[in-house]
Amino acid sequence: MAFSPLVDELVESLRCLPGVGQKTAQRMAFHLLERGRSGGVRLAGALGNAMDGVRRCESCQNFSDTETCGICENPGRNNGTLCVVESPSDLLAIEQSGDYRGGYFVLMGHLSPIDGVGPEEIGVERLINRVVHQGVSEVILATNPTVEGEATAHYIADRLDGKDVLITRLAHGIPVGGELGYVDGFTLTHAFRGRKPLSE
Amino acid sequence: MAFSPLVDELVESLRCLPGVGQKTAQRMAFHLLERGRSGGVRLAGALGNAMDGVRRCESCQNFSDTETCGICENPGRNNGTLCVVESPSDLLAIEQSGDYRGGYFVLMGHLSPIDGVGPEEIGVERLINRVVHQGVSEVILATNPTVEGEATAHYIADRLDGKDVLITRLAHGIPVGGELGYVDGFTLTHAFRGRKPLSE
Ligand SMILES: [Zn+2]
Ligand SMILES: [Zn+2]
Repeated sequence: MAFSPLVDELVESLRCLPGVGQKTAQRMAFHLLERGRSGGVRLAGALGNAMDGVRRCESCQNFSDTETCGICENPGRNNGTLCVVESPSDLLAIEQSGDYRGGYFVLMGHLSPIDGVGPEEIGVERLINRVVHQGVSEVILATNPTVEGEATAHYIADRLDGKDVLITRLAHGIPVGGELGYVDGFTLTHAFRGRKPLSE
Repeated sequence: MAFSPLVDELVESLRCLPGVGQKTAQRMAFHLLERGRSGGVRLAGALGNAMDGVRRCESCQNFSDTETCGICENPGRNNGTLCVVESPSDLLAIEQSGDYRGGYFVLMGHLSPIDGVGPEEIGVERLINRVVHQGVSEVILATNPTVEGEATAHYIADRLDGKDVLITRLAHGIPVGGELGYVDGFTLTHAFRGRKPLSE
């Protein structure tokens, strides 16, 4: 049913958001119109500005308002260590854990030949150039522990073979506070293989 | 953690949407930036236009781009019958059932003294004026079957008492296709009270 052209277009447009179907889009539109007009106006502005202004950092490929992002430009961070992640959310999770003070390289995906995503698309060449020309001493491959993430990590490791750089992978194992009974077999296998002497 | 001013502001603004918390807002922002920029631009425009242009119909209070909405202006509809609903979503549900061809009055809420919502806020005076001056012969009270919805219906019925108009309420009962075992007691009681001879 057609409501009014402006409302219909708003509902239709809201469906570009992930996980938002017709019913949810309607509820969102009505909510904004009824009780959230100032929020709606603010969101309109933020969307316009971000879609227009957010680019990719020339150094790490992460989203940035400027040519080089805040992390890459931060002199307090050790850009001799690069943590390679698949997505900005992964970077965010690591930043929120608060411990890591090196640099990043954000692939914005993983290798997926079936979807036409090759090394070019995720910036492997740019990563290698950075490693070679900017004195990177360690590359931490922090892609996801999925088939695609592992394949991407292996591909990058192969491409870095012979370069003077330490390649590491995040440790797999039992999550801190996790109960053994709830941990999947794949993780348990990794935890056993990675076991360490108690004295360490 | 701060990402970049534009991305942060986008994430923050997305939280004005109902049911969208920090994590979901982040996922939405990244999705738009990574793969949905054209959708984001379209949504920015639709939001701006709707927040600015959508008003309330002067006759039925529903959202409308124009002074009077499409339903109120449709000469094919019988505006001698008015269906009173709490919200545009309720109107939409009735329209989608496809059978009703009368007019509407959208309260945009229900009486809720504790929230400061009185008869003024839901437009009861406007409804009565319309009934009295525009030859309305039937008012169908289709507020929700909740305590507040019932109270609102009763209040409107009282206010229309003595006016030359038939006041009706949607029938309560077993949903079509519903199983008795899954119907709540309140509905069952209504269904029993509203039972009809089989010959009807
Ligand atoms: Zn950067
Ligand atoms: Zn109207």
